Amino acid sequence: MLKLFTAAGTCALASHITLEESGAPYEIARLDFAREDQRKPDYLAVNPKGRVPALATTQGVLTETPTILVYLAQLFPAAKLAPIDDAWALARVQSINSYLCSTVHVAHAHRSRGKRWADDDAVVEALKKKVGANMIDCFTLIEAEMLQGPWVMGDTFSVCDAYLFTVARWLDGDGVDIARFPKVAAHFKLMQARPAVQRVLAAYVAK
Amino acid sequence: MLKLFTAAGTCALASHITLEESGAPYEIARLDFAREDQRKPDYLAVNPKGRVPALATTQGVLTETPTILVYLAQLFPAAKLAPIDDAWALARVQSINSYLCSTVHVAHAHRSRGKRWADDDAVVEALKKKVGANMIDCFTLIEAEMLQGPWVMGDTFSVCDAYLFTVARWLDGDGVDIARFPKVAAHFKLMQARPAVQRVLAAYVAK
Repeated sequence: MLKLFTAAGTCALASHITLEESGAPYEIARLDFAREDQRKPDYLAVNPKGRVPALATTQGVLTETPTILVYLAQLFPAAKLAPIDDAWALARVQSINSYLCSTVHVAHAHRSRGKRWADDDAVVEALKKKVGANMIDCFTLIEAEMLQGPWVMGDTFSVCDAYLFTVARWLDGDGVDIARFPKVAAHFKLMQARPAVQRVLAAYVAK
Repeated sequence: MLKLFTAAGTCALASHITLEESGAPYEIARLDFAREDQRKPDYLAVNPKGRVPALATTQGVLTETPTILVYLAQLFPAAKLAPIDDAWALARVQSINSYLCSTVHVAHAHRSRGKRWADDDAVVEALKKKVGANMIDCFTLIEAEMLQGPWVMGDTFSVCDAYLFTVARWLDGDGVDIARFPKVAAHFKLMQARPAVQRVLAAYVAK
């Protein structure tokens, strides 16, 4: 059975929602970042990167959100989680996921993970200043160029929706009012209304 | 015909090498980052992100290196640039590309693109300090966990090789001796010996 290593508040939520939307059975292993579970030998043996998500499969462990999302879409084609038979449409999905991963997530991470890029506490603190402006730039582009509506790819739910919702949840903590982006705000409400999303979020609250 | 928007010294080299390895005809449009071509209206109309690479196709413009690389592999299956018919093997390719994009490239970018994450010149300067250590961490993981040898995916060249070579070219400028990583150093030499790579690099020197 697939097993997802996840932690509250992280981008692993996108993989978790996708698993739940797939309808397939899966297990969850929750790490506590406050206890630095992700740096412990047991977990580093699973994922030497010391990050989440990691998806343990019968063939090995897979990491990186964009990779896990499209792999799950391919593993469970009946769930129609991505246009896996259309190279161009799939490339558009991949491009959006890659942007969320390498630009939006990175912009956000400068608020609470500044230690990745600086050792000096004053520099780490200073990195928090531009996070809001960068997230606004990112979501301005998402609103104008990526989110077709009502779902990211148009009329059909896809893995991009799970990922965008995950990243949009960070806006409030980054000091950005989601209402600045009407399409993103409407998408966020649609996602909150999905039963699979509600089940996944409840699993985090319950612990 | 496919048209790649590229600039010297950037990650667009990976897409350029992949195009050349594909054997397909393509055009190149070179941007001069010193003149900030990437911020000019003409280019923003092509790619609102103001970055390279961008690949103009008959179906639209595609951005994000991991996306372009695998799309090209799917467009030109005869060139065998990725294991496109094996979901697990392709997921491993995607995972490596995603890591190179969202972690390694980002680590490197803190040396010369610190303005993305800070406005204060002193903070931008301070961000340069940890770049070498972060690149060493990244390449330690690549050496131990990702690069099978002689090629990234083992016996067969793939798009991962074009991308790893592109990123490894930054090590010297980041103050890291590639010789610290014997497998990466051997891979770098193998890549330099490929005719397609030599043709692409010569195109940049000539201008």
